[in-house]
Amino acid sequence: MGDFNQSVILEAIRQSGEGLSRIELATATRLSAQTVTNITRRLLEGGFIREAGRTINGPGKPRVTLRLVADSRFAVGVHLDPALMTFVLLDLSGAIVRRLSVRTPAEDPHRIVEAMATTIDALIVGSGVDRSRIAGVGVAAPGPLDVEKGTVIDPPKLVGWHRVPLREVLAEATGLPVVLEKDTTSAAVGELWTRRESADDSFVFVYLGTGIGAALARDGEAVRGSTRNIGEIGHIIVDPDGPSCSCGSRGCVEVVCTPQAIVERAERAGVFGDDRRASDVATVHERFSRLCERAAECDDAAVEVLRQAAAHITVLTAALTNMLDVDRVVFGGPFWARLADVYLREIPARLDRASATRAVRTLPVDGTVVGDDVGAVGAGCVVLDSVLSPRASDLLLDS
Amino acid sequence: MGDFNQSVILEAIRQSGEGLSRIELATATRLSAQTVTNITRRLLEGGFIREAGRTINGPGKPRVTLRLVADSRFAVGVHLDPALMTFVLLDLSGAIVRRLSVRTPAEDPHRIVEAMATTIDALIVGSGVDRSRIAGVGVAAPGPLDVEKGTVIDPPKLVGWHRVPLREVLAEATGLPVVLEKDTTSAAVGELWTRRESADDSFVFVYLGTGIGAALARDGEAVRGSTRNIGEIGHIIVDPDGPSCSCGSRGCVEVVCTPQAIVERAERAGVFGDDRRASDVATVHERFSRLCERAAECDDAAVEVLRQAAAHITVLTAALTNMLDVDRVVFGGPFWARLADVYLREIPARLDRASATRAVRTLPVDGTVVGDDVGAVGAGCVVLDSVLSPRASDLLLDS
Repeated sequence: MGDFNQSVILEAIRQSGEGLSRIELATATRLSAQTVTNITRRLLEGGFIREAGRTINGPGKPRVTLRLVADSRFAVGVHLDPALMTFVLLDLSGAIVRRLSVRTPAEDPHRIVEAMATTIDALIVGSGVDRSRIAGVGVAAPGPLDVEKGTVIDPPKLVGWHRVPLREVLAEATGLPVVLEKDTTSAAVGELWTRRESADDSFVFVYLGTGIGAALARDGEAVRGSTRNIGEIGHIIVDPDGPSCSCGSRGCVEVVCTPQAIVERAERAGVFGDDRRASDVATVHERFSRLCERAAECDDAAVEVLRQAAAHITVLTAALTNMLDVDRVVFGGPFWARLADVYLREIPARLDRASATRAVRTLPVDGTVVGDDVGAVGAGCVVLDSVLSPRASDLLLDS
Repeated sequence: MGDFNQSVILEAIRQSGEGLSRIELATATRLSAQTVTNITRRLLEGGFIREAGRTINGPGKPRVTLRLVADSRFAVGVHLDPALMTFVLLDLSGAIVRRLSVRTPAEDPHRIVEAMATTIDALIVGSGVDRSRIAGVGVAAPGPLDVEKGTVIDPPKLVGWHRVPLREVLAEATGLPVVLEKDTTSAAVGELWTRRESADDSFVFVYLGTGIGAALARDGEAVRGSTRNIGEIGHIIVDPDGPSCSCGSRGCVEVVCTPQAIVERAERAGVFGDDRRASDVATVHERFSRLCERAAECDDAAVEVLRQAAAHITVLTAALTNMLDVDRVVFGGPFWARLADVYLREIPARLDRASATRAVRTLPVDGTVVGDDVGAVGAGCVVLDSVLSPRASDLLLDS
């Protein structure tokens, strides 16, 4: 691989789904018929594509449809979350072949990397896929990242992480190339892979995890920023009346929009009918789910808490869309599915009112189509990007 | 013009300042010697470049230095501000050949466009430059813009603007191609023209005008957003204790960081020794200047007001840099020069403390080198970009 035109052709075939003939490929890629013939011959020989039927369109030679061989290459995607690690094996079409998840071991970062390597092995062995067909491992992690050292900078609840060169250690333990990416950017890459609206698709991705982050796509590509740390939005102020924050300010995203903050507000509103206060991650998750269930059952207090949360996340989203001038907003992340009903009902009209460009356009708001595993799937897509797509040729895979 | 390689070569010669030989050009642009020879011949014939001396470097043919002919093409840059309109005539090197400014006529937008056309004529006639050498007019205006209609959407203090197709009317009145650009983005383009740090220069530009706006440069280019309205940051909350805002929130940039807001705080702090409150634009400007003078004379109350303003603008700047992950911050706009001393003393350390990536890098903070006319100069550079630079080939000049 590695040839630019080859990547362009392979990506065009992948995106077509149904496959393309050589003539259609030449039209789509603007390459000459001769170049398309030469490159597709190489791709056929390499097993990346296959001939899948002939179409006869009037007189002349029948057209041969070329289709992606999805099981010619695979990628592993890992989502490193403080509570749960999710692992997916993707084929070259981006489809999930196998999925595993394990609880993130507490305390020692080295044990986490060990568990990661072991689970990746189990994932590959269990799938029966030949190791030589695995293009690499993508790890989605909470930012900020230190890309030079290949590690995560002090993620919450994972003390000592900044001393572990995650990328290197994992590459050594698995014998596979490893790329590290922010969970938020991974999610945006997953969204682009799965539902590319257009070649110049541009959106802001609001990621609802244990923390809240953002990612950006422009011209159909994820924008990564100069240190690959785009989208650190935890201290944008969204509620002047909000609680104080460790940064010295008040009402930041981190203390207003996170699941923990929303659960706290629900507790104060008496949604759970007790005066307990959730402190550990597990209880917060459990109460968050109960809050969303109550809201679905039309419990007034629960609905009101979520409506307020939607109002606050709209303040953040408007700050992002007014600054970034994108075409649409995508929500996703592990907590999205439970919030989708209320958020999709509340946010669009609020966002429109706050939009600086409302006189010239409306901003569609959608949930990601990738689902809860968007971080892991996206991380796998980052690896597939480096195989398929000419755009990501600058990604450095450490092996 | 219009040829991509030709633009690449012309831009390389411009950026070199001192000029380049054909061999140096081939190295810098990675074009073949033959291509460079062919294109430079065309550029010489067209009068865009000239031969400027020979250098003998050891044996072999002496190298001929090719230099830009700065007066081969010109551009007009206009800054439309609610109080003042600034006009500059730039040569192809980006240097200011002539400058004019007139008060913005009140009330009727049509009278403003008329005054614009008349002043542009006076600028060109007064310079003695042949009209056929004017590549076009760039107009920097406060956003948001309606690019399709070629007009400004309800700018403050210019009622009725949205009904004037500014770009078309001005093109008709002047007989020149016109491009409309946000004042903030124009400023970033001016900065890129004047001090390009590197080919992948990336910065956020914080524009301090009657309103506060931002612009973004990435990979050495201005990022414009999908409706050319990037950088609408007036309602990002920077002070939870701040005054209420027309948007329904509190402590937004618009009611905390603008000259008017700073003057109000100075009035409340007794800086001016009276209990008057400035209401019109002229008084605000005058009091703003006095406030900055007092601070320069070490008046405690005045210094404290500006330090607080610096703290607030840092909250905004940190929100932008943490979201955008750029390499540096540039301040500019009509009010920058007066604030520079205090802001450059206060902001860098505060910004570093608030930076999500402080563990991996520091963020340089600078003032723009273009000065108070950055909007008008930048608008002229937008036009020159369309002549010189391959990057801006997608800009539509309406003639």
